[in-house]
Amino acid sequence: MSHGDRRKVSVMIYGEPYMVLGNDEPGRIEKLAVLVDKKMRLISQRNPRLSTTKVAVLTALNLADEMIRLKEEQQALAKLLEEEKDI
Amino acid sequence: MSHGDRRKVSVMIYGEPYMVLGNDEPGRIEKLAVLVDKKMRLISQRNPRLSTTKVAVLTALNLADEMIRLKEEQQALAKLLEEEKDI
Repeated sequence: MSHGDRRKVSVMIYGEPYMVLGNDEPGRIEKLAVLVDKKMRLISQRNPRLSTTKVAVLTALNLADEMIRLKEEQQALAKLLEEEKDI
Repeated sequence: MSHGDRRKVSVMIYGEPYMVLGNDEPGRIEKLAVLVDKKMRLISQRNPRLSTTKVAVLTALNLADEMIRLKEEQQALAKLLEEEKDI
């Protein structure tokens, strides 16, 4: 894979800087960083005694849940559309 | 929201135990934990000098990206179906 069209983006998440490679539309990585930052702060507020690592892992788990749910919905919809075609 | 039907699930992610509340089908949280664990190990292999916190935050960022992509695809599909209805 060529990295020629990739640009480095610097974002702040939970008070720490991250350098992320992105070849996407401008502002995308910044938006994703805001989303992760917000979720981390929410989880931390609910569980103030958690370490930053645990907050980040639980945020990842939460996002994995949303992602898999969307994937399942998409598969169900694709199946429905396939069945409709057969009628 | 009632937590009466929720059960506590213990999972291991990146060598650490997590107690997670779940009211979903059995095995769901365990699968999500395996997914997060795998992604963390992949990101850590690619960047061996990263701290565990940074590995977890980048994993969350990666999952947020996948989740938003799926959401965008779903919205595009819904729009397409809506347009088809109008023809």
